Amino acid sequence: MKPKAYESVAVSSRIRLARNFAEYPFPGRLIGDPRGEETAREIVRLVSAQIMPLESFLWYDMSSVSAERAEYLAERNLISRALIGNRRISSAFISRDESISVMINEEDHIREQYFIDGLDLTRAFERISGIDDVISYTVPFAYDEKLGYLTACPTNLGTGLRASVMLFLPALSRGGRMKEIAAKLKQLGLTVRGAFGEGSGADGDLFQISNEVTLGVTEEEILSVVEENVDRLVEDELTERARLKREGGLALSDRLLRSYGILTNCLKIGAEEFIRLMTDIKLAVALGILDGTMEELDNLMIAMRPANLSMLNGVPLGGEEKDVFRAAYAGGKLRAMGMLTDQKRNDLSPRG
Amino acid sequence: MKPKAYESVAVSSRIRLARNFAEYPFPGRLIGDPRGEETAREIVRLVSAQIMPLESFLWYDMSSVSAERAEYLAERNLISRALIGNRRISSAFISRDESISVMINEEDHIREQYFIDGLDLTRAFERISGIDDVISYTVPFAYDEKLGYLTACPTNLGTGLRASVMLFLPALSRGGRMKEIAAKLKQLGLTVRGAFGEGSGADGDLFQISNEVTLGVTEEEILSVVEENVDRLVEDELTERARLKREGGLALSDRLLRSYGILTNCLKIGAEEFIRLMTDIKLAVALGILDGTMEELDNLMIAMRPANLSMLNGVPLGGEEKDVFRAAYAGGKLRAMGMLTDQKRNDLSPRG
Repeated sequence: MKPKAYESVAVSSRIRLARNFAEYPFPGRLIGDPRGEETAREIVRLVSAQIMPLESFLWYDMSSVSAERAEYLAERNLISRALIGNRRISSAFISRDESISVMINEEDHIREQYFIDGLDLTRAFERISGIDDVISYTVPFAYDEKLGYLTACPTNLGTGLRASVMLFLPALSRGGRMKEIAAKLKQLGLTVRGAFGEGSGADGDLFQISNEVTLGVTEEEILSVVEENVDRLVEDELTERARLKREGGLALSDRLLRSYGILTNCLKIGAEEFIRLMTDIKLAVALGILDGTMEELDNLMIAMRPANLSMLNGVPLGGEEKDVFRAAYAGGKLRAMGMLTDQKRNDLSPRG
Repeated sequence: MKPKAYESVAVSSRIRLARNFAEYPFPGRLIGDPRGEETAREIVRLVSAQIMPLESFLWYDMSSVSAERAEYLAERNLISRALIGNRRISSAFISRDESISVMINEEDHIREQYFIDGLDLTRAFERISGIDDVISYTVPFAYDEKLGYLTACPTNLGTGLRASVMLFLPALSRGGRMKEIAAKLKQLGLTVRGAFGEGSGADGDLFQISNEVTLGVTEEEILSVVEENVDRLVEDELTERARLKREGGLALSDRLLRSYGILTNCLKIGAEEFIRLMTDIKLAVALGILDGTMEELDNLMIAMRPANLSMLNGVPLGGEEKDVFRAAYAGGKLRAMGMLTDQKRNDLSPRG
């Protein structure tokens, strides 16, 4: 059981297993060819038959899912861009609570993912292993005694396991520490990515830490090296936050409250500025400057992504309409959260 | 009786009369010489004896007034820098309601001023003329049949009358119109100054319009040319505001509400930024984007000037202390004004 402060750093954990059926070509070989695509549909049916009885899954046949719905799912990190790219043959099975996502005919035949709040890779691994076992009863997985699980891309060979933890690191990031940290983690076989996927900027001070090496190590070794390093990062971030609060003092509180003031009063706001201001507000909560829960703020950030926004609205929104809806919806939510009582204001001001 | 919208443009009117006693040298000749300074004190006593029975005046002998108090009075436009410069021999008589200020031994022996809200130069002139008559019973004023009242500086010769109106011109100013307006008014013998005196920038979009010519015209002519031109400026400003609101639309409302959001949430704010944000808030009130009264906002702006701030606090404040007090005090006042109800927010947003 991790201490409470952990949750304000370690946002969520994800385990992903890459699997392929031994008897079929990889999805890249199936797409574009009529017989191949029939095989791909066969793979979807095989997996579906096994897992649908297990959980209350929603089955998304990507060939009939609208572009907006696909974008909505991608924004919620439930499906990948690669799955959308293969939409002619791909499917996703997503549990109603959004804790499980099984993608079929992405880069590999099967990508099984389990998401969990906070830091608990072991539990996430146990959960997805249950799904993995059930799928494995159908057709034997492509497996080599020496190499382990065979995958479309050599970077997933062996365990096929990617253990990721999403971390909120505003203090380390603002302190210019991320480059050095990423270099250090790389030497340990770990990678750091901005929240919104490979190559993206570190929007929202969110960073995903995951194992790079999948081959020649056991699953347990992967989980433990990720957990250990996440533990250390969480500690570093908490230390850095304490220092930031101490040294930032009034100027920092002032800056963060101005972001709160803008976001609770503006009439329109673009996606980028929204993330920037929300990140300030989250940092303020993390430092005890504002009252609130990280989870509620994280959920709001996801809900305000462009496709999620349209889905929330019911009818697709144009460019400026999105900005107007975002300002009205998020502003209302934030004001209703009671993050800044008069008492709190008094406590924050040296005049109080 | 001017229509209601006038008051949101024409903030206040001021009449100033410059007078000198015929029998004494100008103040510039009195200062620094022991016998001259005794004469200067004699002038103060003569005026004091005449006007103290008229009103509930506070008498400020500038030689014994603290620098902070002098600055406080100057920030409230009740005394001039020149009066402070002559503090060895100068005095001010200020009525408790701050509508009358009689300065003794400024540039001239006597500077009589009457301040009034809104645009009403005629009434202000009548009021100060009453004071002027009473003072004139003591010692004859320096007066020349051909030139009129004699003054220390030729720019005040003749009527000794300066009729000024303070105007809030955010739309004309933001539309880049002030330079052209100033040039046009100059041709009519009028000058435009930033609110905080000659040579200052036009802080707060406040401009003082006054007559430049005092000689060879009657008092009535001066009052009427100022009033006429102020009338025209008020109309231009109101037209320009309507256009600004129409063309500015959502982007303008958004920008002004962001200023409101910052000012009602920040923990410290400097004098310059405060003026900038308050000016946005005043413009928002003028355009019906926020609820509130101009007078309350103008009073808050005066109260938040550095020396006024220290006086309000009771104990002098250092640099950052001022900024902290300003944020806490002004933020609290603005929040208490109920300028932005949930209903108002809904009305402003195209989502509402």
